[in-house]
Amino acid sequence: MKKISILATMLLICVTTFAQQALWGGSQIISPEIHENNTVTFRLRAPKAVKVEVTGDFLPTQKMDTPYGQFDAPGVAALVENKEGVWEFTTPEPLASELYSYTFIVDGLQMNDPSNIMMKRDVASITNLFIIKGGMADLYSVNDVPHGTVARRWYNSPTLQENRRITIYTPPGYENNKQNYPVFYLLHGSGGDEEAWIALGRTAQIMDNLIAQGKAKPMIVVMTNGHTQNNASPEETNRAYTPAMGGGPREAVASMEDSFGDVIKFIENNYRVKKGKANRAIAGLSMGGMHSATISAQYANTFDYVGVFSAPPIAAMMGAGNPGAEEAQNAFVKKLETQKKNGYKLYWIACGSTDFLYKSVIESMKKMDEIGFKYTYHESTGGHTWDNWRIYLSQFAPMLFN
Amino acid sequence: MKKISILATMLLICVTTFAQQALWGGSQIISPEIHENNTVTFRLRAPKAVKVEVTGDFLPTQKMDTPYGQFDAPGVAALVENKEGVWEFTTPEPLASELYSYTFIVDGLQMNDPSNIMMKRDVASITNLFIIKGGMADLYSVNDVPHGTVARRWYNSPTLQENRRITIYTPPGYENNKQNYPVFYLLHGSGGDEEAWIALGRTAQIMDNLIAQGKAKPMIVVMTNGHTQNNASPEETNRAYTPAMGGGPREAVASMEDSFGDVIKFIENNYRVKKGKANRAIAGLSMGGMHSATISAQYANTFDYVGVFSAPPIAAMMGAGNPGAEEAQNAFVKKLETQKKNGYKLYWIACGSTDFLYKSVIESMKKMDEIGFKYTYHESTGGHTWDNWRIYLSQFAPMLFN
Repeated sequence: MKKISILATMLLICVTTFAQQALWGGSQIISPEIHENNTVTFRLRAPKAVKVEVTGDFLPTQKMDTPYGQFDAPGVAALVENKEGVWEFTTPEPLASELYSYTFIVDGLQMNDPSNIMMKRDVASITNLFIIKGGMADLYSVNDVPHGTVARRWYNSPTLQENRRITIYTPPGYENNKQNYPVFYLLHGSGGDEEAWIALGRTAQIMDNLIAQGKAKPMIVVMTNGHTQNNASPEETNRAYTPAMGGGPREAVASMEDSFGDVIKFIENNYRVKKGKANRAIAGLSMGGMHSATISAQYANTFDYVGVFSAPPIAAMMGAGNPGAEEAQNAFVKKLETQKKNGYKLYWIACGSTDFLYKSVIESMKKMDEIGFKYTYHESTGGHTWDNWRIYLSQFAPMLFN
Repeated sequence: MKKISILATMLLICVTTFAQQALWGGSQIISPEIHENNTVTFRLRAPKAVKVEVTGDFLPTQKMDTPYGQFDAPGVAALVENKEGVWEFTTPEPLASELYSYTFIVDGLQMNDPSNIMMKRDVASITNLFIIKGGMADLYSVNDVPHGTVARRWYNSPTLQENRRITIYTPPGYENNKQNYPVFYLLHGSGGDEEAWIALGRTAQIMDNLIAQGKAKPMIVVMTNGHTQNNASPEETNRAYTPAMGGGPREAVASMEDSFGDVIKFIENNYRVKKGKANRAIAGLSMGGMHSATISAQYANTFDYVGVFSAPPIAAMMGAGNPGAEEAQNAFVKKLETQKKNGYKLYWIACGSTDFLYKSVIESMKKMDEIGFKYTYHESTGGHTWDNWRIYLSQFAPMLFN
């Protein structure tokens, strides 16, 4: 085979050289370059550009006023051009271990880093990613541990009268034993779809690592698409693409909450699951957090574990003061009273102190206190962002099915 | 639920508006816009740009001279700026039904279209995609048909002494019956990995559609990573990222060919498969085509169906005239003689008439004729490109397991 290897190498060189000159060419620039001390250099070859900047969550945030209040917007840093037309910026300080996102801004135009193939779709944009290892982000990295399987499937929803795409993580060993596993339903936010928790939430890596460390029980993780106007992520749907979050190409025939029984039925008919509420958990971020609260209240005695990340469990709290809001709050509080009577093991609420939904989360908990509805509250720093949601997942999963 | 829906909508509006002002904002520009007559308009808001172009395989190719011969390079078209700083280009003619790739070039800098979330990694670059329906590309589209499952798993390779990532398509119904299925091993080229056939080859869509039309038998399709220096695609590996095709962060302990028995064993131990050579097919593009030829020769009596796309079945033909090449050719021809004696049902060779490997494909077939080795040859137009490989897959899969 030696000879063929040499020839295969020739082919590689040949095709590589061609590709670099042609449309799909990679770049010879190294960016981002993570230095030994965890400072990071970003580079872009742009000899004709007048101004090149980088923006991302590795930079200190800047305050931004909006009609909805003050937000923490990602910072912006300027790159400096060298003689070869390559622009550069190095972080002044080492970065903490995290999974970071960034894009370049070239003469006002956002563009991805052509030297970095680590890219994920977030809502309707593509962002570049990089990981600083050696700390918390080791949990988000692919490590040399047993890996679970990630399957993209379609299930039928009689309630929604259609087939819908779903992402399912099964733990290492699932295919080679006869054990039954508990199930964790993990729901995305209003900008997401069935790819969000896998792509940006790093669910497969987090679960692989927690299970390998003995910190989480082996479990099946089910990631649905929570927009009932859509049946799949925009890249995988047969419907017209809708650039905005939410909305969609058709009117929904039912809500995600009302159709969730179809998901549970599909999973329990298609996987080796442990049944009963002690073996079911549901959690989500933002809209998915509100879904988790409403679904766990609506499906009586179905979930022993509920996680509400960066969202008010009483969704109507978002509109506090508006007409109809109090009515909706009271109606939901009645459901919580029933849920309290039925019992559960963990109701975990997590929110960042600068989250734009912080106030409604606090108000929700006040209401819950009034009726003696038990919950565990975790307050973190930061806002309505993926770094918080990955951390919440890492904290929530170890508390399940113990 | 009505009240909560209204509040959820408020959240959507709120988050959407914020997102558009912040880092991850989508774009309000529609690009590409596919008109009713199948002309297409590309748009980019770039008020500070001096020159904006689009390049892609929807444009007529242009000849490019390289040390390896003349290639067909993708064409380039100029966009024109309107008063709002939005640049536009509309194709002068309607486009035929196809899956097309493109990127913008802004003042010499390649960038993706921020208005189009249809993006796939091809080698080390990200390209935008769009589909013109109403013809051949309907086969590459998600249609309202039963969908198979795509699972990303890791298998153990004792030969390579490591766990390796693998992509597996199981046909619709696989999970809900007790049937056994034939297996089609589908291998990528030197620039690819275990994501290539799914992302750019549209294997899941092609198989779903061919099976729904009754044109292909339900089968399991197995997509490996053919670079033994790597264990997974760059986004999913625990090794250092290597931007160039091939190469890799560690020395391979064995060849893909020598380790392929581990793949077959894994599949046959983990899936409900029909065994025996009548139920195994192997095909690949470019390097994967050469792998298919060598593996089908090396594993005697294992495959009844072999497909070699855009590659010389006798890999050594690429180096014809170079020292050692004739020796390597003769050694492989001996293996083909044994394969001929053992018998097979289909040996399908496909190549584009402008492929840079065309000559070595023709020379391979001459050698095969000399020993009376039967094959079917399909010559298409075009070159070493994904449009050809999707078509070859669409032609090859229906001939399997009949």
